[in-house]
Amino acid sequence: MSSPPRIALTMGDPCGVGPEIILKALPRLREYAKPAVFGDPGVLERTARQLGLAPPAGDELRAAGELAAEDAHPGRGSRAAGEAQGRYIDCAIAACLNGEFDALVTAPINKYWLNQGGFDFPGHTEMLGDRCGGCATAMLMAGPRLRTLPLTVHVALSEVPRAITRELITGSARLLHAALREGFGIGKPRIAVAGLNPHCGDNGLFGGQEQQVIAPAVALLSREMDISGPFPGDSVFTRALRGGFDAVIGMYHDQALIPVKLLDQGDVVNVTLGLPFPRTSVDHGTAYEIAGRGAASETSLLAAVSLAARLARNRGRMINSGT
Amino acid sequence: MSSPPRIALTMGDPCGVGPEIILKALPRLREYAKPAVFGDPGVLERTARQLGLAPPAGDELRAAGELAAEDAHPGRGSRAAGEAQGRYIDCAIAACLNGEFDALVTAPINKYWLNQGGFDFPGHTEMLGDRCGGCATAMLMAGPRLRTLPLTVHVALSEVPRAITRELITGSARLLHAALREGFGIGKPRIAVAGLNPHCGDNGLFGGQEQQVIAPAVALLSREMDISGPFPGDSVFTRALRGGFDAVIGMYHDQALIPVKLLDQGDVVNVTLGLPFPRTSVDHGTAYEIAGRGAASETSLLAAVSLAARLARNRGRMINSGT
Repeated sequence: MSSPPRIALTMGDPCGVGPEIILKALPRLREYAKPAVFGDPGVLERTARQLGLAPPAGDELRAAGELAAEDAHPGRGSRAAGEAQGRYIDCAIAACLNGEFDALVTAPINKYWLNQGGFDFPGHTEMLGDRCGGCATAMLMAGPRLRTLPLTVHVALSEVPRAITRELITGSARLLHAALREGFGIGKPRIAVAGLNPHCGDNGLFGGQEQQVIAPAVALLSREMDISGPFPGDSVFTRALRGGFDAVIGMYHDQALIPVKLLDQGDVVNVTLGLPFPRTSVDHGTAYEIAGRGAASETSLLAAVSLAARLARNRGRMINSGT
Repeated sequence: MSSPPRIALTMGDPCGVGPEIILKALPRLREYAKPAVFGDPGVLERTARQLGLAPPAGDELRAAGELAAEDAHPGRGSRAAGEAQGRYIDCAIAACLNGEFDALVTAPINKYWLNQGGFDFPGHTEMLGDRCGGCATAMLMAGPRLRTLPLTVHVALSEVPRAITRELITGSARLLHAALREGFGIGKPRIAVAGLNPHCGDNGLFGGQEQQVIAPAVALLSREMDISGPFPGDSVFTRALRGGFDAVIGMYHDQALIPVKLLDQGDVVNVTLGLPFPRTSVDHGTAYEIAGRGAASETSLLAAVSLAARLARNRGRMINSGT
C-alpha cells in the first residue's frame, strides 16, 4: 500500500466527547492517513463552532444520521443519540466491508443508550462480530508496554467461570497469534495465559479450572505456537512487562485491563481481532462529565488511528506479497 | 516506645527461600529493630553455613520446631516441613499475644504443604484470625505508590460474587480506615471501593452487585469516613496512583493485587488488619525454583520488617498518649 491508509472514523455517542476529540485529532492524522468521519454533520458543525475547531473537509464527512444538533445535549444521553451512534457504526462497517476503507476507528459509545436506541449489543466488539457475518472476535488491549487480551469482556463476574472453555481459549489464542505476526510484525510471538483463580487455584485448593480447562487448552496450542501458562494473575503481567512475553491472555475484563490501563493510560488502543478489516478504538468512555467543553484529550484517539494505520499497512503488505 | 520495636519473624517454609532471606536481612534490620527468628535451628545453621551467611545471634533464635536439616530439602516441600512452618507461626503468635513482641513478620509458606502438615487454613491471614480468637481480619497490600485491600482472598473466582456482602465491606472498610489513621498516620484517609463487574456492570447490563450490595454499604460507611464508589476496576487504581485516594478496596484477589504488584513489585508489604498486634509479610512466595542457592532477594522482607516497625511505633505512641 503506497497511498495513505483510508481510515473510517465513527463519531461515537453524540452526547459524549467523540465529536470534539475527532475534530481535535483530524489535523494530525491527515499527515499519514486519509480519514473520513461517519457521524451527524449538524453535531460536528455545532461542536466545531462552539470550540473554535475546524470542521471536517468536504470529502472527510460521511453523513450517517439525521440527528439535529439541538437533540444532542453534551453530557446527557438519549434514545435518539443511542440510535444515531449505532447507525454510524453500521454505515462505517458497510463501507469497510465493500472496500472503501482499509481500517475502522471508533469513538466511544454509551452502551446503555446504544441498547435503548435499538442495538442489542453489550459493546462495539459484539456488534462488529455480528455485522461481519458472526465471525468470532477477540479484544486486544495494546499499549506501548503491555498487550493483553481479555478472554471474556462484557460479562458479569459470576458468569465468567462458566464462559471459560477450551474452545474459547484456543480460538482467541489463534486470533492473537495471527495478529501479533501479521499486524504487529512479531516473527515468533510469545504468549502467556493467566489463571482464573487466585494463585491459579493453588493446586486445586480454590478452583480447578486451571487444571481442567486452561492447561489442556495451552497444551493443545503449544503444538502450534509459543504459548505457556496458566500463570498466577498477580505476577504474569510483571513478567510480560519485563519482556518475558509479547502478550498475555487474561480470563476476564478487569484482570486483563487493569494492568495495561494502569501502565499505559491514555496510550492504550483497543484492537478487535477476527474481523475482515483492522479495527481500533480509544481506551476511554464517553466522559459525559466533561463533554462539550473542549477539555477532552485526543491522545488516545491519535494512538488508535496510528495503530489502525500500521495494522492496515502491514496487512496491505502481506496481501501484496501474497503471504 | 523509645526502645527499638521487638519483631517476631517466622522462618516460613523450610524448603523455600525463607531461611536465606531472613539471614540476609538480619544485619540491616538490627539497625532499627530487635528481631527474633521462630524456626528450626538446624535448618538455619545449615543455610548459614552453605551460603556463607551469619547465623542468628543467641537471643535472636527461638527454636520452634524439631525438623532436622536433612529433612528440609530446598525446593522440595514435604508434610514434615508443612507441619514445621505451621508450628513457627503458632509459637510466634503466642509470643506476640503474651506481649514479648510488638509485631509479627512472616516469611512465605507453602499453602499446600501447610494443609498437608495438619493446618487447615488457606493462608496466613486465616490462621492468624483463628488463633487470635476468631477476630475478623483483612489483608492490606501496601506499596510505596498504592495501597489496596482485597475483600476476598483465597477464594475460587466462582465463589467471589456470593462472598461479597454489605457486612464484609463495612467490616473491612472500618479495619482499613483505622489502620490508615493509626498505623500509617493519615489524619483523614480517603478510601475508594472498586466494583465487582466490568464497568461496574454498566447500569445493571451485566451484574447488579454494585447497586444491590456495594453502593448501599458505601452509603452507610460514608457517614463515618471519606469513602466513595463503586468505581470501575479498570480505572480506580489509576485515580489512586494519581493521588485521588489513600487506599482502594478491591472485590477479589487479582483485582486488588495486580495493580499494586505491577507498580511496586518487590516493595509491596502484606499487612494483616484486625489482629491484636501488627503483622506484615513479604509479597512473594516460597520460590522453590531458586531456594537454597542464595539467589533470593531480601528486599521484600526488609520492606515488611520496616513497615512492621513503623506500625508498632505508631501504635505504641497512641497507647502511650492514651488515644
